[in-house]
Parts: sequence; structure tokens; C-alpha cells
Amino acid sequence: MSAMDTVPSPVRLSAVAAPGQPEPTPALEQLYRGFEQEMLVPLWTQIGDLMPPHPQSKASAHLWRWDRLVPLADEAGRIVPVGRGGERRAIALANPSLGGRPFATPTLWAAIQYLMPGEDAPEHRHTQHAFRFIVEGEGVWTVVNGDSVRMSRGDFLPQGGWNWHAHHNAAISAAERITPVLSRSERLWAHPGLRPVSQLQDQPVTPMLAYRWVDTDKALNEQLALEAEGHPATLSPGHAAVRYTNPTNGRDVLPTIRCEMHRVRSSATTRTRREVGSSVFQVFDGQGTVKVGDHQWQVRRGDMFVVPSWQPFTAQCDADQTSLDLFRFSDTPIFEAVHAWREQVEPA
Amino acid sequence: MSAMDTVPSPVRLSAVAAPGQPEPTPALEQLYRGFEQEMLVPLWTQIGDLMPPHPQSKASAHLWRWDRLVPLADEAGRIVPVGRGGERRAIALANPSLGGRPFATPTLWAAIQYLMPGEDAPEHRHTQHAFRFIVEGEGVWTVVNGDSVRMSRGDFLPQGGWNWHAHHNAAISAAERITPVLSRSERLWAHPGLRPVSQLQDQPVTPMLAYRWVDTDKALNEQLALEAEGHPATLSPGHAAVRYTNPTNGRDVLPTIRCEMHRVRSSATTRTRREVGSSVFQVFDGQGTVKVGDHQWQVRRGDMFVVPSWQPFTAQCDADQTSLDLFRFSDTPIFEAVHAWREQVEPA
Amino acid sequence: MSAMDTVPSPVRLSAVAAPGQPEPTPALEQLYRGFEQEMLVPLWTQIGDLMPPHPQSKASAHLWRWDRLVPLADEAGRIVPVGRGGERRAIALANPSLGGRPFATPTLWAAIQYLMPGEDAPEHRHTQHAFRFIVEGEGVWTVVNGDSVRMSRGDFLPQGGWNWHAHHNAAISAAERITPVLSRSERLWAHPGLRPVSQLQDQPVTPMLAYRWVDTDKALNEQLALEAEGHPATLSPGHAAVRYTNPTNGRDVLPTIRCEMHRVRSSATTRTRREVGSSVFQVFDGQGTVKVGDHQWQVRRGDMFVVPSWQPFTAQCDADQTSLDLFRFSDTPIFEAVHAWREQVEPA
Amino acid sequence: MSAMDTVPSPVRLSAVAAPGQPEPTPALEQLYRGFEQEMLVPLWTQIGDLMPPHPQSKASAHLWRWDRLVPLADEAGRIVPVGRGGERRAIALANPSLGGRPFATPTLWAAIQYLMPGEDAPEHRHTQHAFRFIVEGEGVWTVVNGDSVRMSRGDFLPQGGWNWHAHHNAAISAAERITPVLSRSERLWAHPGLRPVSQLQDQPVTPMLAYRWVDTDKALNEQLALEAEGHPATLSPGHAAVRYTNPTNGRDVLPTIRCEMHRVRSSATTRTRREVGSSVFQVFDGQGTVKVGDHQWQVRRGDMFVVPSWQPFTAQCDADQTSLDLFRFSDTPIFEAVHAWREQVEPA
Repeated sequence: MSAMDTVPSPVRLSAVAAPGQPEPTPALEQLYRGFEQEMLVPLWTQIGDLMPPHPQSKASAHLWRWDRLVPLADEAGRIVPVGRGGERRAIALANPSLGGRPFATPTLWAAIQYLMPGEDAPEHRHTQHAFRFIVEGEGVWTVVNGDSVRMSRGDFLPQGGWNWHAHHNAAISAAERITPVLSRSERLWAHPGLRPVSQLQDQPVTPMLAYRWVDTDKALNEQLALEAEGHPATLSPGHAAVRYTNPTNGRDVLPTIRCEMHRVRSSATTRTRREVGSSVFQVFDGQGTVKVGDHQWQVRRGDMFVVPSWQPFTAQCDADQTSLDLFRFSDTPIFEAVHAWREQVEPA
Repeated sequence: MSAMDTVPSPVRLSAVAAPGQPEPTPALEQLYRGFEQEMLVPLWTQIGDLMPPHPQSKASAHLWRWDRLVPLADEAGRIVPVGRGGERRAIALANPSLGGRPFATPTLWAAIQYLMPGEDAPEHRHTQHAFRFIVEGEGVWTVVNGDSVRMSRGDFLPQGGWNWHAHHNAAISAAERITPVLSRSERLWAHPGLRPVSQLQDQPVTPMLAYRWVDTDKALNEQLALEAEGHPATLSPGHAAVRYTNPTNGRDVLPTIRCEMHRVRSSATTRTRREVGSSVFQVFDGQGTVKVGDHQWQVRRGDMFVVPSWQPFTAQCDADQTSLDLFRFSDTPIFEAVHAWREQVEPA
Repeated sequence: MSAMDTVPSPVRLSAVAAPGQPEPTPALEQLYRGFEQEMLVPLWTQIGDLMPPHPQSKASAHLWRWDRLVPLADEAGRIVPVGRGGERRAIALANPSLGGRPFATPTLWAAIQYLMPGEDAPEHRHTQHAFRFIVEGEGVWTVVNGDSVRMSRGDFLPQGGWNWHAHHNAAISAAERITPVLSRSERLWAHPGLRPVSQLQDQPVTPMLAYRWVDTDKALNEQLALEAEGHPATLSPGHAAVRYTNPTNGRDVLPTIRCEMHRVRSSATTRTRREVGSSVFQVFDGQGTVKVGDHQWQVRRGDMFVVPSWQPFTAQCDADQTSLDLFRFSDTPIFEAVHAWREQVEPA
Repeated sequence: MSAMDTVPSPVRLSAVAAPGQPEPTPALEQLYRGFEQEMLVPLWTQIGDLMPPHPQSKASAHLWRWDRLVPLADEAGRIVPVGRGGERRAIALANPSLGGRPFATPTLWAAIQYLMPGEDAPEHRHTQHAFRFIVEGEGVWTVVNGDSVRMSRGDFLPQGGWNWHAHHNAAISAAERITPVLSRSERLWAHPGLRPVSQLQDQPVTPMLAYRWVDTDKALNEQLALEAEGHPATLSPGHAAVRYTNPTNGRDVLPTIRCEMHRVRSSATTRTRREVGSSVFQVFDGQGTVKVGDHQWQVRRGDMFVVPSWQPFTAQCDADQTSLDLFRFSDTPIFEAVHAWREQVEPA
């Protein structure tokens, strides 16, 4: 017996008098009933919606305030113990236009993970590529395929799909558990331009398990210094940026997620840019103003916001701040891989 | 003013007594209200759903019968004139699990386009990659970037995104409009293993605008003949298949869509296979039985069906038929590009 | 004991009074003797030679006349029997500037292989990539990894390194030995834009064992016809060309050798072109004039000539000929692979 | 007039009575005279030589002693002033089997460049890819495309083809000329896994102009430490190695030259390895024994030696040394690019 006999059709078609639509007649009504029954939709009733003149993200621009997230995460840490539902005590951003599901954009999740002193999250793995960016905290580490990786403010930790990993907070029991300063992956890989000859195979996911803030900070400072000396180094005046990359191929750390750190110098403004694909930003440090489509927000440390596909984005650092540091992740590698990525940048 | 003040939250959280969930208490209820207000979703309420043990497509397996589609398309041809809503008189498959929208699967559209004698569809273009596979008809042609491409039963016509194209049915006015047998693109490119030295640049979309049935049919027959002579050529015994490829790189014709023609020899059965990503099949010729997940259908010429992600698929040709020919298209290139494609094939 | 004590030094240095050279003094002479003893060469004595302002091939431009080669090959067929030294009765072009060795250019060999009726060359293999281009003859075939490949005038047969292969001339014994019209490799692969789904692995060497003249001829004719209709298809007016390519990747048939067929229309002249890397040409059909560096030759069917690296090359078809067809092979893929290829083409 | 009439033929053929050769007869002699006149060489007289069973390098294994090179370079510094022939006061290794030309192997040059205090080498460029590896000295720097690059012992400086560059020794005039500690290229690029977003274009040559010894040394030490802790990191027990790579693609620093630093731990021995392609080694530090083919040498700091194609190579560190550090460069990328590279490694 075929499926089509058992499923009530979800198709609903109405003959309406409208420009570009066929004249409503009994014959048209009858045709529409036939379409509904056979689970068919004539494209002439849909076309404007299906092929918009530019990308129309289902997500909206939205801002989550750090000073409202932290107390909630703190309270969750208190009343939702790990082991009573809190194995993954991660609190996800729910884009207001995505139906209350824990999705920051149609392709990206973003969540705050909060580990209380002495707590562990059990080992697990998943096919999704993921990463951790550390906004606050010390004494926490993750273990990936048996390699202990310390986490400190500003560190970026990619997590390739299907790797076993767990998380620990040694704040209380530091005496017993010593986390090494550098993971084995860093000892093997974190040397600029030097590849271990024992590790020549191509890898779609970066083998480096941590990108440290001290390196990121230095790279951004050097870009601004080079710019000040008159040399090309920044994206635009006052706007430095580094991309976290896979040392085996120079490409994105993860096949599906692009991660970058941006630094906007005091009083500088980035060029307005729109791109195919969605991004999530988090303010790492500093204060400034960001514009996303029609929204404009004054942001500070920890604030997170979404830039939906093709919405124009600009960031400006306040004049009384040294810089505005923005961590960004996006789904760009997917669009690039299928040759569908496009961008428009406001001319200089 | 921030967006979060103006949008009523779509997040709804309930404290429930359930294994793996924190104990329902007034404090938990209050925490959930805080999450709702800030548009946050704790993952402990979602985890089973978000990370299923294997791909769970939103689409269902479904079959559309050709003998029910054709009369509706025919009637649409009569009462919806081109120029009164019918510029795109295409009738789309609506997967019963995708809410009545014209989507065959979450990533693929499939539509029957019906052109009456003497009708033209005006020139247009779109960023989506597309193709035409001709099930029935003669005397119709498309014009792509000024190149006239004749269409006959069994021909496959890829249509790269952002190319200008129009469609014509010369059945009545053949006298005035002569369609060349071969498009210019075929005259330049359709020579096996021979590349024009004037065309050396890499192209993500195939430059060949038509893949003719006579070639496809011959390639499939040769595979079965080679197999009969004892040489490796088929996918499995009695199952021949060709993939339409881009002669500039040997890869898929389109960056986002894979297209193939499969031929199952009389009484033969394909190996059961499940893959990440969804497919749409159309029976080009012959009769047989196909199994998709829990469904089993007896199919014949023109019937179309969906194989959702990770659902097992098998096809068998009836004993009284020479072969069962199945045209297939899928979203596989997207998953391959981001290293997320997987398959399981029943062992020999 | 070290090698340096046992080998008499081949280094010879002379202190000479010359611009850019240090003043000849006894101290300099003594220094030079020290260099000689230690097998050292100071670059100041060499620099003009080592780093010329443009590529300076060791090969010279040279022409071999077919009407002189054929009688010699014929005589060799008579007096050097296969099995008495003639397992490889191939007669190689020896570039006059390469010391009497059988090298057409520093990187390329070219040889005439001549098989008498009824003769076989035993099966063998070698790491070098090779190919056969058939100028004359019928009834000869090669067997590559067990696949019989017929050879006829104008056919091109690539021969990837390390494949087992043998050669046969069935002219006399055709009754017993039937060569199939198409090799199995062609039955599997020679369908334009269609890839067997059972053969998806990347291959650096083409899997197609023959590229037939009927296809090559048609592709060249179509380019000239498209040009005549006003469409871009040729390299320059009256100059059509196809490259033999690997259908698995659209690139050269062999990783180290580029092979092409060029057709110059009656009275047309190719643009003067110079390239890094050397080429060997053979006139397949027609008559015309070719210029290589300072040389100019009137050429006809079978004539072979060398174009050394960076020497300008032009070909012109005689006015009383339909076309001048030139088969070309070159070492270009090696230079391209290491980003060292350059060309200069005379502007239109 | 054709070249063949004007060039005396270099081909010399003799009919000899030998196994696998045709019987010497007057007819054969006459045939050979015909071949000579037409500049043809029958392969049956050559075959053993042309297709050896394994690679046979024209180069020999050879060792150059640092304690003999330095006094000669020193003397050259005194009596060959820069500006009187010494713009490139580089002294090249001449392989004893390559005819007294300044070639270390058929594809590689190696030279000692010696700059006296206060001397400058004028700016120039060349298409060849090159690099500098600093064995001794301080206070010297190079300028590449306007970027000053300091050189110190152990530093590796790639030099892509066609870049303008000059060399300076500021030993005396340091007061006036300040060399920055880091070149601009390092400030932009030498951050592990971090790519400037302003520099996303693929580059066949590394944009990093210096790879510092401090990083190389640390990477090698970490490999040996990880090995000691029981983790995979070295090539074989006691043998650490890093490859200098291009951060834009993770591949070799230069398209034609591979550069690596190897460290053999006290008393350890590398696995015997033979490879297609030739290498030049220089002892950076420590003492030990190396074997190349039939040669065995006791080597120390500065000694240089050649490993010809396919000759087996082993290195052992003396028991009283901490380690034997070997800088190596080779032509491997060329062979890899054309799929011709092979290696044999002695099993563990």
C-alpha cells in the first residue's frame, strides 16, 4: 500500500484573483483539489516567495546580553546538578524567528556551557563539528581523545566531529589533577610554519586542539602596528582580523564552521559588509556600537548577537576604548564549498 | 532599543518529572521563565532530539504516480495559459512531511514542467542550480545564454545558476523555428576525453548543456555487457550506473546536485544502500519494485519517489522487463564538500 | 675513507682578466687550486651562464623528414628481426645538440616503432609514461593490462607508467586473432561527460586507452565551424586545437606529458607563441610552413620537429591544402605542476 | 634550408656481436650509417641504459668538509672584493660526477655565501626558488621586496623566485642601520594556525620570510619529549623531524624544493631510507656517522653531503653527543607533483 493513501495531504491551495495568477474559476478550483490530493504545488502560486531577489534568512538579527545570561547560567549551575539532567548544562541561544528551538541561525548553534568547581561532564562524541571559545574562567580543561587541553580566557578550542571529549573543572581539586600548560597537540603542531614529518596526511579538521589568546592577541596587535607603519596588514583601516586555520592545509579549522577574531581600533569603524551565510558574534573585550540590518546596539564584554544572511553589518569601537574585540563564527565554509558564497563590501 | 524588548519570546519550557531531567521545583520553573524571557533554551531539555544516533530526515519516503500527475498537468496546460500566471507552469512535488511547501526533500525541489505546442516561457535566470530531465515530448528546446538546446526523451540538461534561459515548444511553428540537432556547447565539448584548448579555465558548473540519451543508453549497455564478459564495470551484479559529470574536472555536473542514471537488469536487485543526504528518483523506463525504508512500491514509467536521508533503498527489475531505468538526483555534493557524507552498503 | 680522496677533481678554474672578474693574481690562482681540490666552484666565474635572462634549452630546433625515416625503418624491419635485438624495434630521434643520445629534447623521447606483419613485441612495463600516436598502418593492436586496443591512423593511445603492455601486428594472421573494435577501457569510459559510478577513484593517468581519430577530427571541425558562425571556439582565427584529457579530472592524460592535436585552416597562420618547456610535433596531414626560432621549414605528412624551450613557434597552412594537422606532445605538465610554466603569445 | 644539412651528426653507432643485438653484417653497418646521417638512434642499442631497473642518479654521494670550506671562503672574502666580481661571492658545491659544473645534484645547487663586515650584495632577482640556511654569523640581514629580514644561526629563509632581494652585513655599521628583530612577514604570518584575513589568496611560495631556530629547536625537542612519554610524534624512535611549510596551504615552502630539519637523539639511528630524487644535507650541530650508499662518513658541524636518488641513507648520533642535527633540502616536490615519487623504508 502506498504512502499517498495514508497521509492526509498538507497541501492547501486557493484560487485567488490576483495579478500574475490565473482567473479563479470552478475548473481552477477543481484542479487545485487534484493537486492537493496528489501532493503537488503549482509554482505559479509560490514563485515570489521561492526565488527572492536576494538571500532572505529565516533568522532575525538578535542580541543576547551577557549580564542577563550570566545570572541565569549561575542559577542553573546551582539548581541543575550535573548527573540530574546537567550532563550537558549548556544553555543555547534561541533565535526569535526560529520557533523556540535552540538554534542561533538556521545552520548554527551557540550555547553557554557552565561548569561548577569540581564538576565533570562525562565523555561523549557527536558527528557535529564544534568548538569552545573561553570568555571567562580558569582551571577548566577538556580531554579530547585522551589529550588534556587547558582552557583560559580568549582560548579557542576546535572540536572535530566524532572525537571523544569530556570537560572538567579542577578549581577545587587542583591539587590532585594537574593539567599540563600545553596539550600534546600543541606541542606537536603549534610551531609557526613547521610541520611534523611524522604527520603528513591531509586532515579536514585541524589537529591543533587549542589556539591560545596570547598568540591571537599578538597577531592582531602586529596587524595594527604594521598598518600604522604604512604596510598592508589589516582588512580596512583600524580593522584587524585573524582566521583560525588548519595547519595541514591553511584552510578553516573545521569543514563546516569558520572562526575568526576581529579587533577594531579605538574610534575606528569596519566597512559595511553583507555576506551569504549567517554569523554569530561575541564581544570578547571592549565596548562599541554594532549595526546589523536595521538594528543598532551598544555592546560590551560577553554580549552575543546574530548577523543573518545578507544583512549588512558594521562595528565601531567607542572612542574611550582601546579596542573592540569580536569573536565570530559562521557557516561560510559550506557556501564556499559549493561555490555559492557571495559578499558585498562598502567601497573604501 | 534592542530587538529583545519587542519580540514576544517563542521559547516555551516546562519543568517535568522525567528521567534525565532536573526535578520540577518552583526554582526551576522560575529559571525556565528567565530562559524564555532571554530567548535561551537549556540543552538538557532537548538533547535526544538534537543529536539523534543517525540522520533523521524531516522528509518522508513518498511516491508520486505518473498516471495521476499527467492528467493534472494536462488540465493545467489547458486552463492556466502562459502569460496568466503560467510563465512557470511547473508543478512541484510536495513532500507530505514538509508542511505543504513545494519541496521534495529539505534540500531538493522537483517539478513537472509542461509546455503546450507553440508556447514559450520567457527568458529568466536564478542563482539556484537546476536541470531538466526529459521524460516525454519532442520539438521542445531551451535557450541558454543564446545557445539553442533541443530536448528529447532521455536527455539530461544541466542548468548552472545565474545563466539566462528560456523554453520553447515549436511543435506547431516548426517551419519558422529550426532547432539545431546539437547545441554549440555540445559541438565544443561532447567529444570523449577531448578538451578545447581555448577553454582551459576551471568551471564549477559543466559547460555541456546536454547529455544525450543515445550516449547514456550506450554507456549503460556496455557496463552490463562488460560484466557479462567477466570484467568489472557495474556497481553490483546487474546494476549499471553512470554519473553525469563536468568534463573540465570529472566531478558532478553541478556543485550542489548529483545526477545519475541507473539501470537494473531483468530480475536483478541492487544492493541495499543508505546514504547521508536525500534523493529523488524517476522511473525512466521499465517496471519493478523499489523499497524505501518501510515502504515498498511497484513502479513504472514516470513514477517519482523520494529516498530520505539514511533510509535504506533497493530496486528490483521485474522478470518480464528488459531493465528498470531510474534517473536519480541528490544533494550528495554538499555533504561530500564538507566531509559529512557517509554510506552503508549491504555486503555482497 | 671519504670519496673526496679518491675521485680526481673535475673542477677547472682559471683566473682571467675580464670585466666582472677579480684581478688575476698568484693569490687568486692559489685560491682557485684550493677550490678545485675541494670540488668547489665560485659562482662569480659562472653567473652569466647559470642564470640566463630567459630559458636556454640545451636542445636545438631540428626537423626529421618522414620520407627519409620510413626507408630506414623499413630496412630495419627487414634485417633486425624481433627476437634478435628487435623486441623494441623503435628508432629514436636524437637531437643534434644532445650528444648523440636518443633524446628529442632534454625531457622527451620520440621514436618510430615499426611492426612487420605477423610480428609481436613481448609484454613488458616501465615506469615512464608513454603513448602511441598512429601515423600509418592498420591491423596492429596493443594489449594493456589484458585489454586489447586496436590502433588505426590518427588514434592516440596513452600508456601510463607501470602498466604491462605488448604489441601485435595481425596483418597476416587476422583470421586467428580478432581484435575488438573498441577496447574495454573505451566501452567503459568513452562516453562524453558520463562517468561509471563503479569507477569514482581519482586517477593521475587516464583510464581511457584509446582516443580515436574520428572523435578528434570531428572536434576540430566543429571548432572551425563554430568560429565560422561567429562563436568563440578556436585558439585564434583558423587555429583549432584539442587536448587529450583524463576524464576523471579533466587534466592531462599523463602526469608528465601533454598531448594535443592542432588544425590550421587553409592559408591561416597560428599566433607566434613561446613557452617554457619543449615540444615535439609531427605533421599528421596537410602541408605548410613552420617557423621555430630562426628556422623555417616546409613540412608534410609524417615530418617531425622539435620546438625547444622558449623558442618562438608559428605554423601556416598552405593555400592549396584544406588544413595542416599537427600532433604535439610536450613536457608542460611538469612545469605547470611546480608553478614554473610561462608563455608569451603574439598579440592579435 | 634545414638544420639537418648543416649540423655534423653526433650519433655514432657500431654493429657489434653481442647478446640481444642483431648480427653485425655489412647491411647492418649501412643501416647504422643511415641512422647516423638522419640523427636517429635505434633503441635496441640503448635499452639497458635508458630503462634501468631502478633510478640511477648521475650524481655521486660526496662529502664536503666544513673545516676545509671555511678557510677558502675566508680567503675569498679577503681577495675577491664585492664589486670586483664578488656581487655573488657564493662558492658552490660541485658534485664530482657532474663535470665540474657548480651542481650539487642534477637538480640542486648548494653554495656557501660569505659576507664580510660592512659589505652589501646589490639587489637582484631570479626565477629560481632559493633559500638561505644560516650556519654561522650574526648581524647580517637580507632585504626581500623591501622587508628587512635578520639572519642568525639556525634560521631558515626561503626566497621565492622573482622576488627582489639584497644582502647586508651590518657588523661594523650597526649604529646606522638597525635591523628589526622580526621581519614584517613574520609579524603578519608567524602565529601558529592564525591567518591574516587580509591575506586569503593561495600562494605557491610561503609568505613567511624567516623560520627561526628557536621555533625549530622547540618543535624538535617536543617531538622527542612526546616520544619519551609514549606518544606518536617522531619518524622513528629517536628521530625527530620538521618540514618547513607554507602557512597558506600546509605544503612545502617552495614549489620545487623541500626543506627539513632532522634531529637524531644520542646513540639513535634513523631507519635506512631510499627515495626517488636527490638531497643535500648539512650538519647543523652534533656529531655522528652517516651512510650513503657504499660510503660511510664521520661528520660534524658544517659538513655537507649529497644523497643521490635511490641511494640508501642512514644517520647515527654519537653516544657522547646530545643529538645530531641535520638540515636537509631536496627536489622531492617536483617528483611528487608528477606522481613519480617513491620511497623504501627499512621496516621497524
